[in-house]
Amino acid sequence: MTTVNSVPFGAVHVIGTGLLGASCGLALRDRGVEVTLEDMSPSALSLAIDYGAGSARLPESSEPELVIVATPPDVTGVVVTEALNRFPNALVIDVASVKGVVVDQVTASGADISRFVPTHPMAGRERGGAVSARSDLFTARPWVICEGETHAVIAVETMISALEATPIRMSAAAHDTAVALISHAPQLVSSIVAARLSDAPTEALSLAGGGIRDLTRIAASDPGLWTHIVHANADAIKAVLSGVREDLDRVIKALAESGVAGSRKDIASVMQRGNEGVSRLPGKHGVSTRFASLIVVIDDQPGQLAKLLTQLGEWNVNLEDLRLEHSPGAQVGFADLIVAKDVVATVEEKLVAGGWRISGETA
Amino acid sequence: MTTVNSVPFGAVHVIGTGLLGASCGLALRDRGVEVTLEDMSPSALSLAIDYGAGSARLPESSEPELVIVATPPDVTGVVVTEALNRFPNALVIDVASVKGVVVDQVTASGADISRFVPTHPMAGRERGGAVSARSDLFTARPWVICEGETHAVIAVETMISALEATPIRMSAAAHDTAVALISHAPQLVSSIVAARLSDAPTEALSLAGGGIRDLTRIAASDPGLWTHIVHANADAIKAVLSGVREDLDRVIKALAESGVAGSRKDIASVMQRGNEGVSRLPGKHGVSTRFASLIVVIDDQPGQLAKLLTQLGEWNVNLEDLRLEHSPGAQVGFADLIVAKDVVATVEEKLVAGGWRISGETA
Repeated sequence: MTTVNSVPFGAVHVIGTGLLGASCGLALRDRGVEVTLEDMSPSALSLAIDYGAGSARLPESSEPELVIVATPPDVTGVVVTEALNRFPNALVIDVASVKGVVVDQVTASGADISRFVPTHPMAGRERGGAVSARSDLFTARPWVICEGETHAVIAVETMISALEATPIRMSAAAHDTAVALISHAPQLVSSIVAARLSDAPTEALSLAGGGIRDLTRIAASDPGLWTHIVHANADAIKAVLSGVREDLDRVIKALAESGVAGSRKDIASVMQRGNEGVSRLPGKHGVSTRFASLIVVIDDQPGQLAKLLTQLGEWNVNLEDLRLEHSPGAQVGFADLIVAKDVVATVEEKLVAGGWRISGETA
Repeated sequence: MTTVNSVPFGAVHVIGTGLLGASCGLALRDRGVEVTLEDMSPSALSLAIDYGAGSARLPESSEPELVIVATPPDVTGVVVTEALNRFPNALVIDVASVKGVVVDQVTASGADISRFVPTHPMAGRERGGAVSARSDLFTARPWVICEGETHAVIAVETMISALEATPIRMSAAAHDTAVALISHAPQLVSSIVAARLSDAPTEALSLAGGGIRDLTRIAASDPGLWTHIVHANADAIKAVLSGVREDLDRVIKALAESGVAGSRKDIASVMQRGNEGVSRLPGKHGVSTRFASLIVVIDDQPGQLAKLLTQLGEWNVNLEDLRLEHSPGAQVGFADLIVAKDVVATVEEKLVAGGWRISGETA
């Protein structure tokens, strides 16, 4: 198998048939790879086999060239160690969302770590099981590859590219620090803010708009799974949250001394750093200052939004982003179109000429 | 003027011609009301007049029946007091985003408070000035009306309905507590989390997904304006943020004692309360558990999303919500369709039959 973008492994064994494991199986079989599956739960295994993610491993199954460990994070290290010992010629990767603890456990086990490559695909909703598995779950998603022997890393990287994901090399420590910052700590903050709403008066919630909705969307995540993840990356998350607490204390102090000189400066300073931080998040095409927002009123009827977007398509307008907003009790909604700044005036003109109502615009 | 949904004031004077004031002017003129304008800044006033929000106030202008004070929050109380004294027969309302301080200032002034009704339209992006003004800015948005004389409250409520907004009666204290909870405190938390990104390594940001993006979207807000708002509602915001700090301390302690029994329970408990809180936010049609998410892969080309939504429209599928997601470096994106649970299977089947790729699904 020498074609560019083909998987450099003829036979792959997947241990753990949840969303990620089963999706790996589907994606690899789509590309002609022989996939065998294994799961502690016989019913999870049958389900993944029924879904076409692979076949059960039999005594006569060929020796795998790659083993993918896709178990829950708290047992990943142990399962990787066992796999390295059971399959002495195979490369072994894992896909757990925390990397340091896995590497430490495998290293301490004395297993042949030269055949192990820790990885983490930034894909899926981390819920759903095999029933949500998709062969294209990894398409266009970043897939982190941590340190390992060069030939092993290159082989894994080639497979990741073949699955249409974007391989990103990063040390286990850098990975764990990064996901603490951009995923784990934000998850906990979102939950903490949403927790304030659990006993709030209903009339207060009736004023809720897009801001609080966006802030608390991920607070709907599964506490069971996240408790494992958070536990496995406790130190890195604690470092981020300690920074959050310092700023929070500064803001609370400024609010308590609201009349005192300098208190406003402290709040403005946190908000300015927030402006800087959010502007550094990569957009689809890079810099966010290149885009503007146009808010269009749409009726709450099937087809209205499609009609709007069909017209935008006819005018060759590319949307950077689109959000729907609703107000309680209203029979209309708002489509917030994010488009390049240099076309926003033209688009607005055409929309108005086409009978659309514009409800706002921001630079 | 006795028609249902017509504005019960023949002449309105607007003081402060930013986004809200100018939009009030446009909306009222659209409904046949005579509008005069006033602003401390001659250039802001000219701009609003050019935009058609009203005319300059002349000595021969008729006495207004209603005065709308739409100045920055830190001067609103003073301007309302002056307006009550200048126009002894007019009702006066303000539209500032914090209500308690305004009511206190006006009450303390000794002005005729029987003609004053404090209000707050939950509209606009709180930025943009007159140049962003729209006659339908208030369409379908909640517009809070605080305590006042009954006849005055009813007249203002009638006008709000005529502007197609949704009037919600609430005390000034309840309003300020509510906006601290669902707007002001979340704004500061979003800024604080985004501030962590300001000096983070670029490689960490390359892993950023939809979660952190949603959490930090409002962190792009204007520090200058927000510093005023936060200052005017300091006590209520402090109360919310103190609750956030308590939970944050609990989480940080649990992370520090990550091996100790009970530490996982503390984290799971915060996340469970977060689940409860977010489920209480009103959706377009109420209960969020009635909806499911379907993630469709779309090419990064004009027209693809429109094509998708046209098909959904043809199948009479109503979208509860829709979000676009992008991965760095990828030429494809994802449309996350939120639809009623009872149609999700049918929609998915039709999409797959129509050649669309489904990348994930959540219940």
